[in-house]
Amino acid sequence: MKYHDSETAKEVAGRVESFMDEVVIPREREALETGERITTGEIEDLWEQAKDRDLFAPQVPEEYGGQGLDFSDMLPSFEQVGRSLIGALAIRANAPQEGNMHTLEMVGTEAQKEEYLQPLVQGEISSAFAMTEPKQGGGSDPKMLQSTAVKDGDEWIVNAHKWWTSDGLNADFYLVMARTDLDAHPYEGTSIILVPRDADGVEVVRNIPHLGGHGITEREGGHAEVKFDDVRVPVENTIGEAGQGFQVAQMRLGGGRLTHCMRYSGMAERSLEIAKAYLQEREAFGTTLEEKQALRHRIADAETHLHAARTMVRHAARELDESDARIEVAMSKVFTANVTQETIDLALQCCGGNGIGKDLPIAHFYEAVRAFRIVDGADEVHRRSIARWAFEDVDETEIENTLQFDDDLRIDALEQ
Amino acid sequence: MKYHDSETAKEVAGRVESFMDEVVIPREREALETGERITTGEIEDLWEQAKDRDLFAPQVPEEYGGQGLDFSDMLPSFEQVGRSLIGALAIRANAPQEGNMHTLEMVGTEAQKEEYLQPLVQGEISSAFAMTEPKQGGGSDPKMLQSTAVKDGDEWIVNAHKWWTSDGLNADFYLVMARTDLDAHPYEGTSIILVPRDADGVEVVRNIPHLGGHGITEREGGHAEVKFDDVRVPVENTIGEAGQGFQVAQMRLGGGRLTHCMRYSGMAERSLEIAKAYLQEREAFGTTLEEKQALRHRIADAETHLHAARTMVRHAARELDESDARIEVAMSKVFTANVTQETIDLALQCCGGNGIGKDLPIAHFYEAVRAFRIVDGADEVHRRSIARWAFEDVDETEIENTLQFDDDLRIDALEQ
Amino acid sequence: MKYHDSETAKEVAGRVESFMDEVVIPREREALETGERITTGEIEDLWEQAKDRDLFAPQVPEEYGGQGLDFSDMLPSFEQVGRSLIGALAIRANAPQEGNMHTLEMVGTEAQKEEYLQPLVQGEISSAFAMTEPKQGGGSDPKMLQSTAVKDGDEWIVNAHKWWTSDGLNADFYLVMARTDLDAHPYEGTSIILVPRDADGVEVVRNIPHLGGHGITEREGGHAEVKFDDVRVPVENTIGEAGQGFQVAQMRLGGGRLTHCMRYSGMAERSLEIAKAYLQEREAFGTTLEEKQALRHRIADAETHLHAARTMVRHAARELDESDARIEVAMSKVFTANVTQETIDLALQCCGGNGIGKDLPIAHFYEAVRAFRIVDGADEVHRRSIARWAFEDVDETEIENTLQFDDDLRIDALEQ
Amino acid sequence: MKYHDSETAKEVAGRVESFMDEVVIPREREALETGERITTGEIEDLWEQAKDRDLFAPQVPEEYGGQGLDFSDMLPSFEQVGRSLIGALAIRANAPQEGNMHTLEMVGTEAQKEEYLQPLVQGEISSAFAMTEPKQGGGSDPKMLQSTAVKDGDEWIVNAHKWWTSDGLNADFYLVMARTDLDAHPYEGTSIILVPRDADGVEVVRNIPHLGGHGITEREGGHAEVKFDDVRVPVENTIGEAGQGFQVAQMRLGGGRLTHCMRYSGMAERSLEIAKAYLQEREAFGTTLEEKQALRHRIADAETHLHAARTMVRHAARELDESDARIEVAMSKVFTANVTQETIDLALQCCGGNGIGKDLPIAHFYEAVRAFRIVDGADEVHRRSIARWAFEDVDETEIENTLQFDDDLRIDALEQ
Repeated sequence: MKYHDSETAKEVAGRVESFMDEVVIPREREALETGERITTGEIEDLWEQAKDRDLFAPQVPEEYGGQGLDFSDMLPSFEQVGRSLIGALAIRANAPQEGNMHTLEMVGTEAQKEEYLQPLVQGEISSAFAMTEPKQGGGSDPKMLQSTAVKDGDEWIVNAHKWWTSDGLNADFYLVMARTDLDAHPYEGTSIILVPRDADGVEVVRNIPHLGGHGITEREGGHAEVKFDDVRVPVENTIGEAGQGFQVAQMRLGGGRLTHCMRYSGMAERSLEIAKAYLQEREAFGTTLEEKQALRHRIADAETHLHAARTMVRHAARELDESDARIEVAMSKVFTANVTQETIDLALQCCGGNGIGKDLPIAHFYEAVRAFRIVDGADEVHRRSIARWAFEDVDETEIENTLQFDDDLRIDALEQ
Repeated sequence: MKYHDSETAKEVAGRVESFMDEVVIPREREALETGERITTGEIEDLWEQAKDRDLFAPQVPEEYGGQGLDFSDMLPSFEQVGRSLIGALAIRANAPQEGNMHTLEMVGTEAQKEEYLQPLVQGEISSAFAMTEPKQGGGSDPKMLQSTAVKDGDEWIVNAHKWWTSDGLNADFYLVMARTDLDAHPYEGTSIILVPRDADGVEVVRNIPHLGGHGITEREGGHAEVKFDDVRVPVENTIGEAGQGFQVAQMRLGGGRLTHCMRYSGMAERSLEIAKAYLQEREAFGTTLEEKQALRHRIADAETHLHAARTMVRHAARELDESDARIEVAMSKVFTANVTQETIDLALQCCGGNGIGKDLPIAHFYEAVRAFRIVDGADEVHRRSIARWAFEDVDETEIENTLQFDDDLRIDALEQ
Repeated sequence: MKYHDSETAKEVAGRVESFMDEVVIPREREALETGERITTGEIEDLWEQAKDRDLFAPQVPEEYGGQGLDFSDMLPSFEQVGRSLIGALAIRANAPQEGNMHTLEMVGTEAQKEEYLQPLVQGEISSAFAMTEPKQGGGSDPKMLQSTAVKDGDEWIVNAHKWWTSDGLNADFYLVMARTDLDAHPYEGTSIILVPRDADGVEVVRNIPHLGGHGITEREGGHAEVKFDDVRVPVENTIGEAGQGFQVAQMRLGGGRLTHCMRYSGMAERSLEIAKAYLQEREAFGTTLEEKQALRHRIADAETHLHAARTMVRHAARELDESDARIEVAMSKVFTANVTQETIDLALQCCGGNGIGKDLPIAHFYEAVRAFRIVDGADEVHRRSIARWAFEDVDETEIENTLQFDDDLRIDALEQ
Repeated sequence: MKYHDSETAKEVAGRVESFMDEVVIPREREALETGERITTGEIEDLWEQAKDRDLFAPQVPEEYGGQGLDFSDMLPSFEQVGRSLIGALAIRANAPQEGNMHTLEMVGTEAQKEEYLQPLVQGEISSAFAMTEPKQGGGSDPKMLQSTAVKDGDEWIVNAHKWWTSDGLNADFYLVMARTDLDAHPYEGTSIILVPRDADGVEVVRNIPHLGGHGITEREGGHAEVKFDDVRVPVENTIGEAGQGFQVAQMRLGGGRLTHCMRYSGMAERSLEIAKAYLQEREAFGTTLEEKQALRHRIADAETHLHAARTMVRHAARELDESDARIEVAMSKVFTANVTQETIDLALQCCGGNGIGKDLPIAHFYEAVRAFRIVDGADEVHRRSIARWAFEDVDETEIENTLQFDDDLRIDALEQ
């Protein structure tokens, strides 16, 4: 299926595809077959190969060690990295590192960029974004954020209890969202503070056990529960302006929903590739499974829905250049999340018992995709936004001229 | 598929099935082929045959001219009559006549039974139940009922504007719901008044045009808009006790939802029978359509869902003998309404262009079934009841011991 | 929702929208309220207004009396005309007239254009395309076409039995597909012959009764069964080259599937507009229905799916400029057909009893949309094409390296 | 929801429910909270408590140490044990041990019962059923079974390569399906041979990694790949008659599909219980989530579908007493498998981020339930059986009288 991406976008995506097919997917396959986890050294080796191919950290400006692609040119490459369990990792474009780099690049000071961004891009250090809290803080309702950072001289004293902090187990520093002005509305009184892991008072409590928590790499970032107890850091560690934490976070999340869509659609595509190869290989009741129409037609629908998702995401990306494209992004996100879950579920079913086996990557994808209908705004939150938009500007003339049409939803008298 | 119905129920249903296959369906098929509507005289002829077979008005006590079957023994016969567009009509078990007979039999006076029930059973006269009103009256919220009947000496003066009055075009009398005590809550101050069609002030405004309004019989009952303007009737025309109108209506609707389920599942079953015969007959791309697995598997699912509906309805009927079975009936109704619509839609698709043609009954069924998700309580009303039940008695210990588990639906920080 | 259509396309669609909102929809609403059919004279009056607004026959070259728009510029206007039951008719862009005009314009001789195209564009005469046959001829398998035209001197002798001939009741001429060389493969030996209605041997047997056959205009074109019995017409009546009938038909159907998608998505959009206005107006259990979240969220999903359909159709239209875009069109068609049916079904449900009433256009749309999953290739035919495409070029390395992974779909031993 | 189970069935199920609520679920909750696996000693302690409550091994005859309940009396108890991750294990009714006990009890010799059944019931030893093979053997097509057992004097020489052997990691003996008469059809020439784990030539290759492979107990049985290389066992180790292996296996699977349905519906019910408690607890946008109608209605549908599944299963169980109930069981299985997966998925969504967290059991259930649409016959295998049944005895008169109704699925001429 061809799309109307820019020539640069297509060219890069083509090279990413080759890297995946030639290097990354074979390495993934080997790990699945042997059951031996991929070491940190091997990941670093993949990074070297990505550098040789001019694919390393594609979203990062060249001065900080990346390829300097803009958002829309990067987009189709995310479909390609999504095809492998370690695809995004292999080119250093994996969440949350990629978003944290983007944040530092956008609003970081020169000193912060030198001390943290440069080594972060190179993979010498790792980072985490600490937003979500137990007791509903840091979720959809900003008024419930409970973490605080109080200024004491030229230091912040940070007190926070965070969890679901992605990659938080191994992070060398945390970007902590905390209220810094309790009198202000949280939208005006929240800041992001960079806290080094080795500061006094930082405690990584545990890796929250979760669906999909058993990956194929040696060093799992996990989703951590982390406590910050009277941690002192210099005020220079503020990321962006004090009080602007929500604005920075929003910027960070900006196009991220669309890149997530692309990566998950890559997962779904790979799952279909495997399922189709499997159906061609296996036989039952006298023919290959490929010839059974019931599965063929369901695969046709899955391909159709994936195609729909991809056209929506590209439309939204184009709109995002001109506006906040809030509804277009919400529609793309909720649609893609559901379609990719259904597609991967179908692919798993096609492979029978081997579908739930972890010799193939599908069962891993199946675990990973389930989170997508929850993170970055649950389905229900996006439907809420879309519905609100849908009910703006309803044309009352559609009904007001027909006010005699007013029976109720329940018409017991209408029997047949 | 065998069910655990009583021997009487099976025996009668078997004879109804024969009547349908031997007489009623062939007559229906002829009407569809020729496009000529079935006359009232022919319907009366079918009644004679039903009498000869001891199947006429099976739900009515023998003393009033019926077969005297109780509810559960009657139930499987409704599946059989549902298989034909004129099935219920052919044995005088069609709504709303059947419900009106049941009402008169339950709460009518001897005089009312003699004057109205006897000829109604015999089909000498026709009736309608006038409940629903424009402006939301008579629907789900009883407080909005606007019709009134005021006592003046030994007469009621009825003022009412009704619509969606089924069979209201040709009715010889109406059972009108009206408020008779405006100071009381509607549940306590509403009565059902029998109003003859030829009373002064009764005006049949129109047949409300609607989906499925083009049947195959000469005399269409329609869904009428009817006005009652200062209509005077004697107080003896009260049906049941004054003030007990809602209680009587509820009794009338009682098991009706389950018989509706059975009839619609009969429609769905017949649709599948036709679709399967069609698929066996037609060829494309080298085989009969029957051999195409995609349609076969969808038919398998339709059969499965119909079977589920039938087991649920039977379970609910059994419960109904012991309790009000409110939730069991709501579940049966909403499930069956959706399953039968989907099944008929599938059957239509199987027949291609002929599916939408009215040479076959499927397109008629397709029109008829759409109302079922709305009448007798819309899907949404039943889901509301079921949800309320589901949230009673929630076991808080499931969560209270785990109060640390409290993140929000939206977890932006959980990225991968 | 904004799309990236051309400026011309947007400008015309904006004017079509105004025509619909100001003139066509109010006229439709009046017809629905009064139940009086729109006369042929009134339709002609709408044509005059469309001419005044430079919107008449937009797809026809200016020299033949239209607006001369190309395909992609015309596309978004079809969304607008789809919003009304008489929208396409009002600007003389309704099927099958529009396709027949397109055929005559593409391959007709100058004499044919003068005699038939000019008056056809002006609405002085009407036409029909006679392809489908009883006994499976003229359907998906060309080898089953049974109609013949045999050359006798300078005349064709046409023998054909056709049905589902749209607008065939009132047609002044028929474009008849018939085999003209029985020795050749049908793709090489079929021709399209223009047969005037008043030629000897033409018999319009009947209007095939069908779902949605009760419209709101006086003159219903219907789907006709037509017999051609030794009908003689001059060989100059061949449309395009003899033997090229299938190629001409394919050209005719070309972009038609996409314009159908647009019109049906317009229907679905209007249905949602009405449903939303209805939900804002009606109350139950203390709030307007608009505030009930269950329906809101389902409307959000419907909006999302409609949006997906529209982005797919636009993508396919752009591809169609460069290739046959067979799979893109198939995906767009099957997706849009299902989404619009589901959306209209939801809108109907939102309006309760009034949803099935024909005072509102939704029940009409509900009837009309059901054909869309069957005509222009049934869902199953398109899924078949998409599946075939999906299984081309499957990458066997996905499985071949993992040949130990080969258990069957049924794993009885895997118990838990 | 009340069902019409026997008094014994209800009484036992009530006591099982108490055991779950008072002992088993609290123990499960503790394991989830602490992340510490439940030890084998603790499981044995649960067995003691089950014995004290007369609930231990309910399906096993009293003479072998169980409670001696028959199938239908046992059934509702399986719903209760399904509510906990360790429920079936806690009363020694977990697959595959329970099925293996049943097999030995049915066809084992007195010596086999003494040596293997008695200690197996008591949990002193463990067992596995080795049927499925790589390369498609042992799956749906019996002709592909490749394992062999050749008689040599009074010994079998067993050669087999098995996988997906449930609980095969820790088994003390295997019941191995192998061909013992290569000249006979596999249905007549296959036997089940008991092979002790410590026999020469038995190699447990690995635990096949799979979805749901990370449980909460210390001793995971896993799904093992096992090789048998020239393993010699005495001919007395034949389980049942030689050559009757398939018949014994079928007997073993007999009612097993229905008990699986019950256990999974218990899982789904518990998931809903947790989701409802969670929705009552959590707030967003000003109300508890319980008050959001969108989720309420979806929960109502889930409750409805679960209820449908339970009525179907009970109907099938009753039929199973009188016939093989093949179609009833197939319908129950495919319906329940899909409904329970969807229900658990919904419950997970309701809990947001905590849904994918393993502090709650839902994510565990989510992993476990995915296998159910594959094991014991994949959805597709059951649909195949149901479709075959559905197309038996199609009434051709539905179409033969209407042979003029024969247009194709694709009707290009039917345009609108």
